[in-house]
Amino acid sequence: MSAPEAERLARAALSRMFEPAVPRISALVSEHGAVAILEALRARPDLQQLRSDADPRLAGLDPESDLERAARIGVRFVVPGDAEWPAQLGDLHHVEQLLGQGGAPLGLWVRGPARLEQLVGSVAVVGARSATSYGETIAGEIAARLATAGRWVVSGAAFGIDQAAHRGALAGPPGGECRTVAVLACGADRVYPSAHRRLLEHLAAEGAVVSEVPPGCAPLRQRFLSRNRLIAALTAATVVVEAAARSGALNTASWAERLHRPVMGVPGPVTSEPSVGVHQLIRAGGATLVTGAGDVLELIGAAGEHLVDPPRAPVRPRDRLATRDQQVLDAVPVVTAAPTPSIARTAGVAISEVAAALERLLAGGFVERAQGGWRLDPAGPG
Amino acid sequence: MSAPEAERLARAALSRMFEPAVPRISALVSEHGAVAILEALRARPDLQQLRSDADPRLAGLDPESDLERAARIGVRFVVPGDAEWPAQLGDLHHVEQLLGQGGAPLGLWVRGPARLEQLVGSVAVVGARSATSYGETIAGEIAARLATAGRWVVSGAAFGIDQAAHRGALAGPPGGECRTVAVLACGADRVYPSAHRRLLEHLAAEGAVVSEVPPGCAPLRQRFLSRNRLIAALTAATVVVEAAARSGALNTASWAERLHRPVMGVPGPVTSEPSVGVHQLIRAGGATLVTGAGDVLELIGAAGEHLVDPPRAPVRPRDRLATRDQQVLDAVPVVTAAPTPSIARTAGVAISEVAAALERLLAGGFVERAQGGWRLDPAGPG
Repeated sequence: MSAPEAERLARAALSRMFEPAVPRISALVSEHGAVAILEALRARPDLQQLRSDADPRLAGLDPESDLERAARIGVRFVVPGDAEWPAQLGDLHHVEQLLGQGGAPLGLWVRGPARLEQLVGSVAVVGARSATSYGETIAGEIAARLATAGRWVVSGAAFGIDQAAHRGALAGPPGGECRTVAVLACGADRVYPSAHRRLLEHLAAEGAVVSEVPPGCAPLRQRFLSRNRLIAALTAATVVVEAAARSGALNTASWAERLHRPVMGVPGPVTSEPSVGVHQLIRAGGATLVTGAGDVLELIGAAGEHLVDPPRAPVRPRDRLATRDQQVLDAVPVVTAAPTPSIARTAGVAISEVAAALERLLAGGFVERAQGGWRLDPAGPG
Repeated sequence: MSAPEAERLARAALSRMFEPAVPRISALVSEHGAVAILEALRARPDLQQLRSDADPRLAGLDPESDLERAARIGVRFVVPGDAEWPAQLGDLHHVEQLLGQGGAPLGLWVRGPARLEQLVGSVAVVGARSATSYGETIAGEIAARLATAGRWVVSGAAFGIDQAAHRGALAGPPGGECRTVAVLACGADRVYPSAHRRLLEHLAAEGAVVSEVPPGCAPLRQRFLSRNRLIAALTAATVVVEAAARSGALNTASWAERLHRPVMGVPGPVTSEPSVGVHQLIRAGGATLVTGAGDVLELIGAAGEHLVDPPRAPVRPRDRLATRDQQVLDAVPVVTAAPTPSIARTAGVAISEVAAALERLLAGGFVERAQGGWRLDPAGPG
């Protein structure tokens, strides 16, 4: 199944004309289709403010060549109606209707073999660019375990946590499968940051690099914010590993919250600057505390799936004793034996019960008879 | 104001006869008074099970000498009706009625000048015995700031977090005031652990050492659990700094929860064993995440008191620009100047608006005119 070609062309043109996350365009296109809206924009210079913002880009518009050039560099333009269109992006329509923000993308420019419909159930692992080695280690471990569990990991290819998440996801699955996708603020053909050339080339060869802006577009500041909304909307949940105050990762988290997707945060030392934002988020109830991939899978799994056993201390033999027997055992001296009445006084338990308990404890090897009464068996099970 | 002497004597006798946290005794004494209950116990060997547990201790009972001996070593027995009786312990009655657990103490054996009524609004700072230096540092800092803010800090004098909390509270207030109290599982006259002799002597001289069990009693295992309920009940809130699975601190936290007192947890690295229990508690909703004394004071203060400013990144000059001006500024090249229409194409903003924005940005020192158009002002405010 794929969308009609005229609609794809019109969406490519609009994608070139408008910055991402212009709610009015998104709503108009959902209602009337891209072909009709593009026609109206070309014909009616009175479509203020939409038209005047689009004007500077209207002249050079050539969506056919755009799509051809994109195809030559391995970039396809995926639009609603295509089999691989991620249906979960539809939730952005609801947020737009409620809050007047964001809106669904007109289409996604994709470089790489991964099909976007696989991102159902994927997890965003995002965080600070200036991450600590603690944060990068944890992000990598979480991503590796998620990918091994069959979940796709989505992040932004930035320095720090993003990079660690992609690398972890790549290293995770034993078969070497690539279950990670980068969503960029610039065109999917561009390499940003340039230090991540090899990572991005690898993702383009094995996974996917995705963008809402057409090939060639620069990573302008506002595009990072609209990119964050895409990461939140493409995934089933967002995990924030480290995030200083005013971090882009917190922006992704707030988009996930608006989209009613679970938001999770990994804590760190309260003395660590990059954990401040995560702690703030958890404290304010904006994120659930998670300590690893097990917690994440439990929170996003179907009810009862992936349940994590709460960590427990090992059970010692004495823990298996009845309460009364434990009370008596506590009152038995270590070195100098004591008679039953003295043990009863110490324990605050009736003498007859103490006598019976001591016999049980003797049988269990906890206590021994000695000169003058009872004491702990030094070879006992403890 | 102080309680009638007969009632005090009867409570001292019952305190010697029964282990702490026997709900039935606590309820009977609340209803009929200690004098009547002691009489009934002496007279009626059929008061099973209460009487048979008490039997081993009934013979040697001598509350007058008990109180005298206690007074000689500086220990007083505080009971309901005394001016310094901490009224907040009454909440233990409600828990007992609802859950059949615990019960209010018959009295408290106190060594030290601190008056217990001062513990209204106090904070329990508790945690792992095998704490990390991270945990001890944070516990000490929190306790110091709470004591400086006039709050009493209650803990259990154990190794690790307890000790760090007491020391922090002692070091905090600039005047050298002692605003910390230790609640022990053994008699208030005993030194346990023995390594904390100097700490306990200092608290007994300047603050207070408190116990529910009479002088001389040993720190039996079950007494730690009933001691934890006292720490939770004496204080207005409990802060857990580090706690491995099955930590006594988690027991204190669950008592605080039953008592509807706020429970708070300080996170740490997810790789740190002593933080596992705290993370579990926060994740399960059993504690609010706090990162320092500021958060604690905010949570226990009256509404609007001690509000903590959420951490914020510094505001840069460009953050104060209107959104449209920011959009245009993002599209201005760094080195090679570009003409207005080109900037308008990049920004996706109408040419007339771009022209106006560029004039404002020029006035603000953000951009400069150059050969061929506009570029960023290298000396601009950034």
